[in-house]
Amino acid sequence: MRIVTISREFGSGGRELGKRLADELNFDYYDREIIDTIAHNTGTDPNYVFTVLENHGWKNIPLTFRQSVKSPLTVQYAQTELLIEQKRVIEEIAKHGNDCVIVGRNADVLLQDYCPFNIFVCADVQAKIRRCMERATQDENLTPKVLKRKMQNIDKQRKQIRDILTGSKWGEPHNYHVTINTTDWEIKQLTPAVTTIVNRWFGRKQ
Amino acid sequence: MRIVTISREFGSGGRELGKRLADELNFDYYDREIIDTIAHNTGTDPNYVFTVLENHGWKNIPLTFRQSVKSPLTVQYAQTELLIEQKRVIEEIAKHGNDCVIVGRNADVLLQDYCPFNIFVCADVQAKIRRCMERATQDENLTPKVLKRKMQNIDKQRKQIRDILTGSKWGEPHNYHVTINTTDWEIKQLTPAVTTIVNRWFGRKQ
Repeated sequence: MRIVTISREFGSGGRELGKRLADELNFDYYDREIIDTIAHNTGTDPNYVFTVLENHGWKNIPLTFRQSVKSPLTVQYAQTELLIEQKRVIEEIAKHGNDCVIVGRNADVLLQDYCPFNIFVCADVQAKIRRCMERATQDENLTPKVLKRKMQNIDKQRKQIRDILTGSKWGEPHNYHVTINTTDWEIKQLTPAVTTIVNRWFGRKQ
Repeated sequence: MRIVTISREFGSGGRELGKRLADELNFDYYDREIIDTIAHNTGTDPNYVFTVLENHGWKNIPLTFRQSVKSPLTVQYAQTELLIEQKRVIEEIAKHGNDCVIVGRNADVLLQDYCPFNIFVCADVQAKIRRCMERATQDENLTPKVLKRKMQNIDKQRKQIRDILTGSKWGEPHNYHVTINTTDWEIKQLTPAVTTIVNRWFGRKQ
């Protein structure tokens, strides 16, 4: 089984790279699917799970949000519980045995016994803002300033959660096999090159 | 003209990658050649130039070494003068117009007007020590402990010189197009994948 993990700065195009890579390699692809499974298993709302795990992070359990969400079940899970469930879901994916690309959620560390190929994706702030603005819907009404703040908050969270859970630094190049700066790339043009690296990596090990 | 620059941690295999990449791409290759040219132009000893620029760095001009080296000419150049000459030599290479791979010496920043493709190569300490031990001659009599200290000193120097000369952080992934961790790779196996990235990069720009 071959597992590729992608960790990424918000807006760097890491998710698009993951999707395209999975398509080119003919691997399964996991991203929001993990959130949906956690929500299903814990009987919570996927938006709640997403917000707790992705946007608000480790330290601040968003009580107001928790109270405002109408979950199909009455139990709302705290962040630690959701993180434990997330770990379980990711381990289940690996046990399933299919080749796959997993985006985010510290899968590189959680699945290290499976020797995944780990990619980190970064980009310059301006490039990330440009990428997000292109993808934003009109009614999101995002300004570059708002986006920049959002970007910094989310990355800070990702960094914090990783530091606490894994003791391994987020974005530090020694913790990944390859780190790609997408600033001057179209993800579409970059993907075949990354596919080659992944193929050589797994070819090397066989 | 296509320029590839390789910055690297000591012992990470960056130099070997540069050489192999130049061979595969059929590009000119510059590494120690730059030192030899500086020595030739300034009438100093190549070992002197190498030691000043590579091993002892920016702040400590190795006076004892300078006095002990018998240069063919009597003039010994100070580090700032050698750095200026290095800059000139690297710019000359670019003006020459041939496709090339340049290892080290902040060529990525010095030649940024030529839009080079910039690679950073890193590896875990243990992997770097292993690589160095394999390449060391018996009479070097290096122990892992000595190597580790040497490694740390050289990388500290590279970092310092870059910080002072360029204001751009050495080894920070946003400053390179791709950062490769060679810990679990044979450079030989890795090279074709890097060649693909380089080719796609320059293909993209045409």
